[in-house]
Amino acid sequence: MAEITIVEIAKRCGVGVSTVSRALNNHTDINPETKKRIMEVIKETGYIPNNSARNLKRTDAKCIAVLVKGITNPFFTPMIEIAEAEAEERKYALVLRHVEAYEDEVDVALELEKEKRLRGIIFMGGSSKHSSHKLKQLNVPVVFATVGSDISEKLSKNSYSTVSVDDKLESRKMTEYLIGLGHKRIAILSEGSDKPSIVKQRLEGYVEALEANGIKVDEKLIRYVDRRIYSMENGYKTTKALIDSGEEFTALYCISDVLAVGALRAFADAGIRVPEDVSVAGFDGQDISRFCVPRLTTLRQPLEDISRETMKLIFNIIDEESGHKHIVFPGELIVGESTAKR
Amino acid sequence: MAEITIVEIAKRCGVGVSTVSRALNNHTDINPETKKRIMEVIKETGYIPNNSARNLKRTDAKCIAVLVKGITNPFFTPMIEIAEAEAEERKYALVLRHVEAYEDEVDVALELEKEKRLRGIIFMGGSSKHSSHKLKQLNVPVVFATVGSDISEKLSKNSYSTVSVDDKLESRKMTEYLIGLGHKRIAILSEGSDKPSIVKQRLEGYVEALEANGIKVDEKLIRYVDRRIYSMENGYKTTKALIDSGEEFTALYCISDVLAVGALRAFADAGIRVPEDVSVAGFDGQDISRFCVPRLTTLRQPLEDISRETMKLIFNIIDEESGHKHIVFPGELIVGESTAKR
Repeated sequence: MAEITIVEIAKRCGVGVSTVSRALNNHTDINPETKKRIMEVIKETGYIPNNSARNLKRTDAKCIAVLVKGITNPFFTPMIEIAEAEAEERKYALVLRHVEAYEDEVDVALELEKEKRLRGIIFMGGSSKHSSHKLKQLNVPVVFATVGSDISEKLSKNSYSTVSVDDKLESRKMTEYLIGLGHKRIAILSEGSDKPSIVKQRLEGYVEALEANGIKVDEKLIRYVDRRIYSMENGYKTTKALIDSGEEFTALYCISDVLAVGALRAFADAGIRVPEDVSVAGFDGQDISRFCVPRLTTLRQPLEDISRETMKLIFNIIDEESGHKHIVFPGELIVGESTAKR
Repeated sequence: MAEITIVEIAKRCGVGVSTVSRALNNHTDINPETKKRIMEVIKETGYIPNNSARNLKRTDAKCIAVLVKGITNPFFTPMIEIAEAEAEERKYALVLRHVEAYEDEVDVALELEKEKRLRGIIFMGGSSKHSSHKLKQLNVPVVFATVGSDISEKLSKNSYSTVSVDDKLESRKMTEYLIGLGHKRIAILSEGSDKPSIVKQRLEGYVEALEANGIKVDEKLIRYVDRRIYSMENGYKTTKALIDSGEEFTALYCISDVLAVGALRAFADAGIRVPEDVSVAGFDGQDISRFCVPRLTTLRQPLEDISRETMKLIFNIIDEESGHKHIVFPGELIVGESTAKR
């Protein structure tokens, strides 16, 4: 019984592993009859899904650590679910670690490395610049997912992998979409941290787009939230301050969907109509962007693809079938109801 | 340097430990000047905040396990943040474990118990009924938080603790609020699982309220989402099916705010105005309830108080200063913009 794997279940049902994973994780994008059949086969075979606690039993199970900056952020949910299913398929245990905003994720990784069974480390989120000195101390393969592609100035790109979108390019794309709608006074909600990060890259993309289109960058339209970009409260407060300042603007680009939801509420409270009076855009393509009123125009990151590729890559590196790589996925501009022509 | 604790930082700043915790966790409900002073003192003293990875160093650190059903659910974020701060203060390590929907959380706990340093287990979320046989095998104190108060039929209430709201009572309160507005055809979005849980209790509260007010329970107005009650997609689909069914109703009560957000979107798509044409109510009091348009009428659970009391209780039991207790907090009905008189 203990030998049944998710791959075996998939074979018996005539479906892919990801379909079995969707059934187990109770996703909605699965045919109810397929799901029913899968759950029956699982019951018949006595298959026990993977989880870290159960894996403690098999003391010889190799493991992969996933360090998530802000694990309570729903942004990473689809990525973690896929990572779990892929690890399961390879009979690896997945160790999930929460890294607080004030912690250095590489410090946490150095501690985790004392774990003897560790074969690889995946960083999700967090800073995009790290000390080469510290990174060099890590003795297992490292992949950065959704962090950017240029992690350390002094370290060879052959010594670590990255899988992500090009945040600067995608942010430029969104800004140029707004410019294409006729907007010239485009405000932005970004983050005030001075650490290099995807947040900084998104801000740079915004500046590049304006400059390339001959629009003067107005510092008064660049607004910084208080560190956390996944806080509706921060989006609300910062937008309210922007409105109260009396600065003129016809569009507001928020570098996360969560900030944009707070912005929508601030405009509603001020009696400003979206998109009639002001256009609002987000970034990420999270669930909330499809369900808020109005639906958000956003830049969707293909998180499922990024996670799947990250897992494939780290196993290939562990098995010495591949060297380190830097993979960039394109984002997708999704036009919602929150933006309109100027 | 290593001896500096969060308590010491709080003393030096003349503030409470929770204020220091808020500063570290970058909460918004803190005076910016206080926060600045705290961060300066932290920098001066070289204080290093607690985290599980660092705690691996101190092999003698006692630990508390927190088992969270659906850790990626933002519902538990404020509870986990407080649990971390309180554990830090007591120099305990906090081990956070993710329990999938299809896993039995007590099975996971039994595995975790092999960890020698474990002194107590906290369950957040999950089923409200467990096998007495399995629970008896746990050798450390157990506290159930936000799970209900009656966990096992066969087990003495002196052998485990619970901290929560009375889900049935609070749900009845919300339903009676809607009845008080003149609504008689009140639909509900609940969950189809047959496992006893807070979800079932909320449904019972709804039924009780209707019956107590002489309103016939109409099965056609009780709609079940496909297991996950923290999915906007589920709220959307189930509400759309309710609208399409042609059943008459003037109010929709969703047993989570997340479902209610999906419901709001479904009504918007159908051209049905909230609250003019239909009233919508949620449950939980999550962030999104304050930022969606219209703001949700909801039943706020005091999650911070529940978490703080849970930690206090488990340490008192570990130190043998208290026996097991069953603590019930009142919820708070928050009237938003999504409900109106019939």
